[in-house]
Amino acid sequence: MDRHPLESLPVETLAEGKFLRLAQRGPWEFVERVNTSGAVVIVAVTLDDKLVLVEQYRVPLARYVIELPAGLVGDIQGQEHEALVTAAERELLEETGFQAARFEELATGPTTAGLADEVVTFLLASGLERRHDGGGDEHEEIVVHEVPLAEITARLRDFEAAGKPVDTKIFTGLYFLAQRR
Amino acid sequence: MDRHPLESLPVETLAEGKFLRLAQRGPWEFVERVNTSGAVVIVAVTLDDKLVLVEQYRVPLARYVIELPAGLVGDIQGQEHEALVTAAERELLEETGFQAARFEELATGPTTAGLADEVVTFLLASGLERRHDGGGDEHEEIVVHEVPLAEITARLRDFEAAGKPVDTKIFTGLYFLAQRR
Repeated sequence: MDRHPLESLPVETLAEGKFLRLAQRGPWEFVERVNTSGAVVIVAVTLDDKLVLVEQYRVPLARYVIELPAGLVGDIQGQEHEALVTAAERELLEETGFQAARFEELATGPTTAGLADEVVTFLLASGLERRHDGGGDEHEEIVVHEVPLAEITARLRDFEAAGKPVDTKIFTGLYFLAQRR
Repeated sequence: MDRHPLESLPVETLAEGKFLRLAQRGPWEFVERVNTSGAVVIVAVTLDDKLVLVEQYRVPLARYVIELPAGLVGDIQGQEHEALVTAAERELLEETGFQAARFEELATGPTTAGLADEVVTFLLASGLERRHDGGGDEHEEIVVHEVPLAEITARLRDFEAAGKPVDTKIFTGLYFLAQRR
């Protein structure tokens, strides 16, 4: 693998918060997450072929956003080395109330490689059983939507028409689902 | 649309660079792009059914990354109000050397709604004609890959095996392509 000339330059920290660091290397500014080892995005389909989506207020956009269930890995003190599937199980259950019998890794990659060091792993969750109503941890207020896959395009359009942006990772999840059917 | 309680709190700037701002509202830290009005991601397919991908060094990951051609909108002085298609035409031509006869909007949404205010628009580019070899502007060193759609899964796996992460937006693009075929 070629080393890039910029790798000889130091990474400078412009600012560091509790969760994010704004950094610069040469002319390039970027953001890094602090104290996490990754992120999981969960493509969860119920036994009656509904895709499980979550709706929550997102400060960066100042809007309620429609997304796949997702969460950070290794961001809880004492669980820094947790497996991806452990984080996926916890986040899916916490956010949506669904417990999955099986998880399968679909793909891992950066989401926005020019902006951030964020790398996410998409996992397929199947064999879902509802344990509770979901809603997230004590800081979250998450609404769960179960959308029939047969109506997904129209239903996503409805969310947008209601002023709720649709995270484009939902379409990534739909690609992997289509591949498996 | 409900107003969220956090909207009564001010947005504080923790640090501001030339391109990015690290901000905080209440307990939530996030990053905003400075001086842009959006971003375009281009799903460009050649007349012989090859998907056009770009490879470039990405400082946030310190790796050469495989991505769809993409770029910011309205980030050039004097062109702050440019149309999405204008930016898409420029970025596709600059990065890949291909000029498209038609652009069609596929979807617009956030890529990582908990982290950043970034909203991208996916556009389908068709009727491609090669004008030059591409490579990007004077600050970029972009390698262009034309990958037959029939071999895409294997070829993306090859890139990863070679230590080059695959941006997950490529799969988003493949979803829209599959829908249209």
